[in-house]
Amino acid sequence: MDVGSREQGAPDRRCRADRARQAADVIRRQVVGRAFPDGVLPDELVLAAEFGVSRNALREALDLLREEGLIDRVPGVGTVVVGEKYPHGLDRLMGLAEVLHEHGEVTNDIRAAGPIRPPSSVARRLRLADGEHVVYVERLRRLNGLPLSLDLTYLAMDVGLPLLDEDLRHRDIFSLIEQTSGRRLGTAAVTLEAVNADLHASTVLEVPRGAALLVVERLSHFADGRPVDLEFIRLRGDRLTMSTVLNRVGSVAAGSGA
Amino acid sequence: MDVGSREQGAPDRRCRADRARQAADVIRRQVVGRAFPDGVLPDELVLAAEFGVSRNALREALDLLREEGLIDRVPGVGTVVVGEKYPHGLDRLMGLAEVLHEHGEVTNDIRAAGPIRPPSSVARRLRLADGEHVVYVERLRRLNGLPLSLDLTYLAMDVGLPLLDEDLRHRDIFSLIEQTSGRRLGTAAVTLEAVNADLHASTVLEVPRGAALLVVERLSHFADGRPVDLEFIRLRGDRLTMSTVLNRVGSVAAGSGA
Repeated sequence: MDVGSREQGAPDRRCRADRARQAADVIRRQVVGRAFPDGVLPDELVLAAEFGVSRNALREALDLLREEGLIDRVPGVGTVVVGEKYPHGLDRLMGLAEVLHEHGEVTNDIRAAGPIRPPSSVARRLRLADGEHVVYVERLRRLNGLPLSLDLTYLAMDVGLPLLDEDLRHRDIFSLIEQTSGRRLGTAAVTLEAVNADLHASTVLEVPRGAALLVVERLSHFADGRPVDLEFIRLRGDRLTMSTVLNRVGSVAAGSGA
Repeated sequence: MDVGSREQGAPDRRCRADRARQAADVIRRQVVGRAFPDGVLPDELVLAAEFGVSRNALREALDLLREEGLIDRVPGVGTVVVGEKYPHGLDRLMGLAEVLHEHGEVTNDIRAAGPIRPPSSVARRLRLADGEHVVYVERLRRLNGLPLSLDLTYLAMDVGLPLLDEDLRHRDIFSLIEQTSGRRLGTAAVTLEAVNADLHASTVLEVPRGAALLVVERLSHFADGRPVDLEFIRLRGDRLTMSTVLNRVGSVAAGSGA
């Protein structure tokens, strides 16, 4: 096969914006993966050579990551990492405080907590009879004071009411459910979307209007299959990543070992 | 426990924006889940009663979903669904055409395809020796002509070179790898982020500048554990969702059956 004849598709013929994006994607992963231990990126000329791009394309790549709030230029120092991203595993069903305990203290501002009549589609997902109420809990969740996520939670009444007397400010709802019910949670169905922050959500989460958020819907079940906890979660895209391992073969996804 | 005394946390005391968001989250899932078979939402008064909010709060909720490009108002008809979201399973390692075959035809604009010298962090992830080249493939992927994702792919040389003679325009890279190598893919490590589209990416993907994108990094391995395919994927947040099932207990995630 003559690769040289594929002039049109040759990766070195693309426009600067394409080359900048290609470099930015790799550097983003390095930043998130803490590949620069002192938080300072190599010199632009070194990076440009590393990625085989012009200095202008490399600067465009760094501009993209600066717009994302990951890096910044500091005169006399160079390009430094300014935004940390925290990993939220998609491998197991875990609460935020469980996941992030090594990164600091998770606290929750309780914006609402009490019984409501749920909309019918929420009632259906929780397999409730017509007219049954749920406990609604709305929390702004912080890591070391920094707002990370806004969680809207609908709980089956028997599961949710005991939680209202517990320490919702410092505890994950998952662990409180298991403690107060004496039962284990089993599986959760999770759906992820990327959505731009509206004005009010951006104010609450302290991000610019329109900032990219991960929106997660998560329906958690007791081990016996009964759905008890339906959550709508807005996660700051500039501060959280989600990871998992997928299997090519079979219907069972892989664990976190690969 | 006296729920009535929790005035501050009472869900019915919150501001309109909070109530609007709460309603919007539930309606968004109904739209994505095709809960409105004729594509027309119920009357505003019906929805307001359903969600226990004022008509103004309900309108604010619909405004949020209109900004996301999911619904629109049509005079004389009402509020209609205008944006379809396609489900991309996170349960199994599958190519886009495999995942979306029931929704239509996936075609790929090949923006680049050929050997390059990879940046060192890419070489390390593919476990390549210093100086080894990779095959780089850049594709704009469309479903029925609509741009859905921009994929930047680095392939080990022995795996990637044979693909350059294949039908990259109509086939998933996963299935081409398995066909040309005669080997099966095993697991993939996946990381998801939400990122705002830069000017150039927004032009390519035909979304507004700043639109929320899902950015996926995926490192796929042969069944023997050798990493062969590293991809950086930008997915349109307004057109794709990703779903999976998580397990509370143990290190092995659940399948898609729950």
